[in-house]
Amino acid sequence: MTLDKKYILGKDTEILIVGLGMIGGSYASALSKQGYRVSAITRSPSTIEYALSRGMIEKGSDKPDPELIGKADLVIIALYPHTLISWIEENQKHFKPGAIVTDVTGVKGSVVGKVQSTLREDCEFIAAHPMAGRERSGIKYSDDSIFRVANYIIVPTDKNTEGAIDVCRALGETLGFAKISSLSPDEHDEMIAFLSQLTHCIAVSLMCSNADPALKKYTGDSFRDLTRIAKINDEMWSELFLANKEKLLSEMENFKKSFEELETAIRRGDREKMREMMKLSTARRTEFDK
Amino acid sequence: MTLDKKYILGKDTEILIVGLGMIGGSYASALSKQGYRVSAITRSPSTIEYALSRGMIEKGSDKPDPELIGKADLVIIALYPHTLISWIEENQKHFKPGAIVTDVTGVKGSVVGKVQSTLREDCEFIAAHPMAGRERSGIKYSDDSIFRVANYIIVPTDKNTEGAIDVCRALGETLGFAKISSLSPDEHDEMIAFLSQLTHCIAVSLMCSNADPALKKYTGDSFRDLTRIAKINDEMWSELFLANKEKLLSEMENFKKSFEELETAIRRGDREKMREMMKLSTARRTEFDK
Repeated sequence: MTLDKKYILGKDTEILIVGLGMIGGSYASALSKQGYRVSAITRSPSTIEYALSRGMIEKGSDKPDPELIGKADLVIIALYPHTLISWIEENQKHFKPGAIVTDVTGVKGSVVGKVQSTLREDCEFIAAHPMAGRERSGIKYSDDSIFRVANYIIVPTDKNTEGAIDVCRALGETLGFAKISSLSPDEHDEMIAFLSQLTHCIAVSLMCSNADPALKKYTGDSFRDLTRIAKINDEMWSELFLANKEKLLSEMENFKKSFEELETAIRRGDREKMREMMKLSTARRTEFDK
Repeated sequence: MTLDKKYILGKDTEILIVGLGMIGGSYASALSKQGYRVSAITRSPSTIEYALSRGMIEKGSDKPDPELIGKADLVIIALYPHTLISWIEENQKHFKPGAIVTDVTGVKGSVVGKVQSTLREDCEFIAAHPMAGRERSGIKYSDDSIFRVANYIIVPTDKNTEGAIDVCRALGETLGFAKISSLSPDEHDEMIAFLSQLTHCIAVSLMCSNADPALKKYTGDSFRDLTRIAKINDEMWSELFLANKEKLLSEMENFKKSFEELETAIRRGDREKMREMMKLSTARRTEFDK
């Protein structure tokens, strides 16, 4: 098939996944199970073997094979942000005319503009963020059931066509995401700075702030829940934090202000102020349950 | 029976629970189900009715009935810290000679010494902290199944006898707690400042730091887990925070230092430092899973 802009994901669509990590692998599983034609490019030969032997992909290569790239109608790049940008720069010459390219990265502002301005005119990059993750990385931890309770965010810009946005939405639906929405790169990065990056910063800082190993004997569920995300892929998250530096720092500042307000109220024994903040947090958190 | 210091909880033990809130009610349920003789004193007549009609207690009063108090071998006071102290001051004259008195409060340093120094010589106060809770308060939310996954901490001082400590442990076992341990009031308050109070401060501050209601559309599980405890009983927790003020402020300071270290690393683009903290948090948090 030729991929024109009216195209919607079909069983004859050639899908190429670049990077078979936990997320790339989960995409491959979900799509192959439903009979889509999936191939993959990833660095490690053993990962390719693993994916082939489990029927997660039809074909794979540990190098940017021009033939594999050239026949793909839809290219899903599941790499870290900086690798994504350089991979596209180096390999876009092999893209099929009309190919749609999407991604899975957790920051958008520093990625989307750069990719869209360097991509060949006859291809289109439409950004997406599958808000699903696990504490472990690598294809062995891939699991497409994580999508069923997760959000899929499409992040279009004014350079995107309705057709490509539709393909991206169809991909999210096929993968089985619980909810699909759409945000601008700026809105996305602000949301992610607060809901995801700040919370990871808090959990990491909390675990770093107390060295007493005896504490684990008394740990209850609230503490475990709150710190689950302190187990973190340092290579990926340090890159994501820096790729969204300004917005993250601003959320960190807001949080610190609020934390210091509570601290001051406690120091002064200002019970009214403490209760006011607790009532506000209770009301806001209750909204999140609805 | 007469309660001498060799006494262990028995089916003929007269147990009085003072305060039928969520925790007091859960104690009443667990003990009555196993055939113990439980009576209760609590402020609201409708709570007494509720407990009587469900077989949670045999007898109850909405006033500090001298007869009910006077026949109790074991008195469990499930009130907030300041009410606990004044309740004992006002009603200890009715206590049965040899009665053992215990509590459920979440702070110990500011409670135990005061109670032990004012209590009649022929009675004994042994402190305990059932580390179980729910987001809601009141007898209607009582549920003794919460003990099955929770810690029960006995908090003895040098004024306590082995006999009373044994009774307190037997109570924790009878209630069905997953784990029973023993800490000094100082150790207890330090542990609770970090594992429970600081985490509640963080969750409250986080919810107070961002007013955008649209965010709830994109909230994932990590954020929900981290902020579950932001729904908080402001009356109780503001009292608990102030009753453990110095230790809590010191943990807040440690956390802030660690948070600012990460903030500085992000601002400077110091990826090595960021990764070092993430590795430390991952290693420490992994220990908590064991």
